[in-house]
Amino acid sequence: MAISIDTFFLDPDSQGTLQAQIQQMIAQGILAGRYGKGEKLPSSRKLAMHLGISRITVTLAYTELLSNDYLTSRGRSGYFVSQNAPEPPKFAPQVKRTEAVDWSRAIGQKFTGGSAPTKPVDWQKYKYPFIYGQVDKTLFDHANWRLCALQALGARDFSALTADYYDQDDHQLIEFILRHTLPRRGIVARPEEVLITVGAQNALWLTAQILLTQRRTAAIEDPCYHALRDVLTQSRCHLSPIPVDRDGIQPDLIEDGTDVIFTTPSHQCPTSATMPHARRKQLLRRARDLEAIIVEDDYEFEVSFLGAPMPALKSLDEDGRVIYVGSFSKSIFPGLRLGYLVGSEEFIREARALRASVLRHPPGHIQRTTAYFLSLGHYDALVRKISKVYQKRREIMENAIQEYGLEIAGSGVFGGSSFWMRAPENVNTVELKHALKRNDVLIETGHPYFAASAGIMNYYRLAYSSISEELIPEGVKRIAHEIDQLTRH
Amino acid sequence: MAISIDTFFLDPDSQGTLQAQIQQMIAQGILAGRYGKGEKLPSSRKLAMHLGISRITVTLAYTELLSNDYLTSRGRSGYFVSQNAPEPPKFAPQVKRTEAVDWSRAIGQKFTGGSAPTKPVDWQKYKYPFIYGQVDKTLFDHANWRLCALQALGARDFSALTADYYDQDDHQLIEFILRHTLPRRGIVARPEEVLITVGAQNALWLTAQILLTQRRTAAIEDPCYHALRDVLTQSRCHLSPIPVDRDGIQPDLIEDGTDVIFTTPSHQCPTSATMPHARRKQLLRRARDLEAIIVEDDYEFEVSFLGAPMPALKSLDEDGRVIYVGSFSKSIFPGLRLGYLVGSEEFIREARALRASVLRHPPGHIQRTTAYFLSLGHYDALVRKISKVYQKRREIMENAIQEYGLEIAGSGVFGGSSFWMRAPENVNTVELKHALKRNDVLIETGHPYFAASAGIMNYYRLAYSSISEELIPEGVKRIAHEIDQLTRH
Repeated sequence: MAISIDTFFLDPDSQGTLQAQIQQMIAQGILAGRYGKGEKLPSSRKLAMHLGISRITVTLAYTELLSNDYLTSRGRSGYFVSQNAPEPPKFAPQVKRTEAVDWSRAIGQKFTGGSAPTKPVDWQKYKYPFIYGQVDKTLFDHANWRLCALQALGARDFSALTADYYDQDDHQLIEFILRHTLPRRGIVARPEEVLITVGAQNALWLTAQILLTQRRTAAIEDPCYHALRDVLTQSRCHLSPIPVDRDGIQPDLIEDGTDVIFTTPSHQCPTSATMPHARRKQLLRRARDLEAIIVEDDYEFEVSFLGAPMPALKSLDEDGRVIYVGSFSKSIFPGLRLGYLVGSEEFIREARALRASVLRHPPGHIQRTTAYFLSLGHYDALVRKISKVYQKRREIMENAIQEYGLEIAGSGVFGGSSFWMRAPENVNTVELKHALKRNDVLIETGHPYFAASAGIMNYYRLAYSSISEELIPEGVKRIAHEIDQLTRH
Repeated sequence: MAISIDTFFLDPDSQGTLQAQIQQMIAQGILAGRYGKGEKLPSSRKLAMHLGISRITVTLAYTELLSNDYLTSRGRSGYFVSQNAPEPPKFAPQVKRTEAVDWSRAIGQKFTGGSAPTKPVDWQKYKYPFIYGQVDKTLFDHANWRLCALQALGARDFSALTADYYDQDDHQLIEFILRHTLPRRGIVARPEEVLITVGAQNALWLTAQILLTQRRTAAIEDPCYHALRDVLTQSRCHLSPIPVDRDGIQPDLIEDGTDVIFTTPSHQCPTSATMPHARRKQLLRRARDLEAIIVEDDYEFEVSFLGAPMPALKSLDEDGRVIYVGSFSKSIFPGLRLGYLVGSEEFIREARALRASVLRHPPGHIQRTTAYFLSLGHYDALVRKISKVYQKRREIMENAIQEYGLEIAGSGVFGGSSFWMRAPENVNTVELKHALKRNDVLIETGHPYFAASAGIMNYYRLAYSSISEELIPEGVKRIAHEIDQLTRH
């Protein structure tokens, strides 16, 4: 690859000669690793024109670098970075800049320090990854996704791919969601009531910004999805954790003065509890009494292999009180980053304005590809395939868990992709996790899901979405063995 | 397409018989336009199993709908929505929901009502679109973009495409930016100092959240990019508009107590002024005296056909005081939504945490496709092609503007894609815009760029990025004619 001429600048404040400056620029580029060995330099004529200096100055600089073996020349084909040039440092190049800014003062609002745990990016290197929320290569319908992406890249879809939508969405995707996705959840909605988001995380975040202030109270499930708690903590509202039982959040315990209730009725996160019909009606009544808004995160309803899923809480909403959060990232793949919000027009209008301010719109090409993947039926086929495989894995998990004497604290009525597990009280699952990691087993500790003050350390989650079935028994065995070791201390 | 069985639910609270409920569900689906004519219904056996009721109930419901001509049967192949079924309403289906929520109370923070003008989504229907920031179909390198997307969709890149990166970015894209993009702007940075964003809009938004609070002051250029002003207004900081002259923002006028300075030195938005070297040094000195942070939006530096672009302000930054905002959306296509932030590690760490909370990460596939498009040299070729075409268009524009006696208020020293125009003082460019729209000409009014109180109504912007050269003279002629009409009143 040729080194671009645009990387060359003269510094008007430089003390040295022009020739020295050019030599320095090139040598620094090589030393910093920006110019690789064998890369071609601009011709002396072009560089001279670009910098507005005489060609002889550039030629002299090149000749000097040639004699230092930074460069070589190959006759008429020009100058190249020499194979004998000094090695760039293995460490990151030191920038001459000295940090003169007091960042502790300059940063007005901090966003680091949330409770969401760091997840292992190298999880694929582990043999027994009981981790949640990553895609299983062997299940994803790569070929059809590629075909849909190709179609969306075609000349006919050019404008969908490239245009600035301002605050709008791809109408094909919106139409599919209205006609096919939402009816499956018992929801009827109009286009003005739907907004596409950069994943469900973005949908929850937008909702929190609009509904909450420092003077408002949000009820969350306890335990609850830690990333949601971080989002709400950042909004500085008052947080009111409501205990979850085997039927999900307990409406009677929601405090007076609550403004917004965040809930996961299909599949409580992380306990996997499914809220029964009567409890749903009770929750809606409680919200009406409180004049509160309910935010329903309907994650993972698709993976329902043990029975038909119940319709969404939103389908029972006669008041316009429920804001519904859906996602394609979970069931297609998490790197897709595509979710949606369904709610009253007044609310969606604000969410659309905030989204436009924060990021304008999710990339058009991603929206259109997903619209094809959905409308050609590949999505349904994928969900069926995943469900079938998960069902098998779940059976094997259940058997292994029973065989090795582990305790299930919660599991989905309709399906899902994980078990919520309880270790004996004196087991600290952070220790357990580290010990297992050394034994090639990845588990997820449960404490980040609980309110910080709770100090509950003996829960963990085992997902079967990324581990192949033949490895499950040995993985569970290793967990049981490690728990056994820890309880003996 | 077959109607999915998952769209059928029984309502436990329903008063009618099971048969009546099924009939109603299907009829409502047809009437609401959710089930299209000719679509196949689930078999009575499958639907009965799905709902957990007897098959005869479903059969009786189907038979009833058959006799009402909602459905037809094609012998053994099953039931279909009849071609004679009632037409779905042309208006949006009325949901039975009555809005019982007082949204004026429920919405804690409003985000609608910014000053950013609504842009015509149907701009391609106009013959003379002097509009800014949309892509010209005839210039974009569609074929190579498609090849890069295909490569990124290949099996080898599967994990880049699908994984949840958590808070990370595609390392290939980061590496290219560090090695090739930033050096062209005279910037040396380490991976910890760069964050990928969902377009430059997202980069500016993240920066504002981190650096500003209600107690802090942001200096902005006047006139300035209206979407930036909206972002800052939402952050509720104190806004201090600083007049722009032909060299850009005037450092002497930046008030004491300013915490953050937002500036566009390469190409002032919207006047296109390029800040000279001496002014840049002066701005950096002023910021150092104030202990203020500078946010440099380096938009449109690529389109530099009149001379080599100056290095970025960031390249002169010895203190770590400048936060640099770059974008690929502008020069590849705006629907791409891909930009980046460069700044001190402490700052980028907070931006990364906030981004993770708001949306996790820009889609992996988009990042990887862009990395290929850049590293295979297609991006440079595209920029060269665009620059050449824009140069020609600009010449034609300049000639036409002179011929028809319009006044240029600002234009880029190095290039760019638009002219900043001044109409006579008594011309209201909102009126001008509407009159021109009726004559197939689109222009952008200037007043949203000025502080609201200014009431400056006689500026407008003419871009040549989306209009073909042969149409320019007639378009300019029409503008001149309309201005002439308006000044006569």
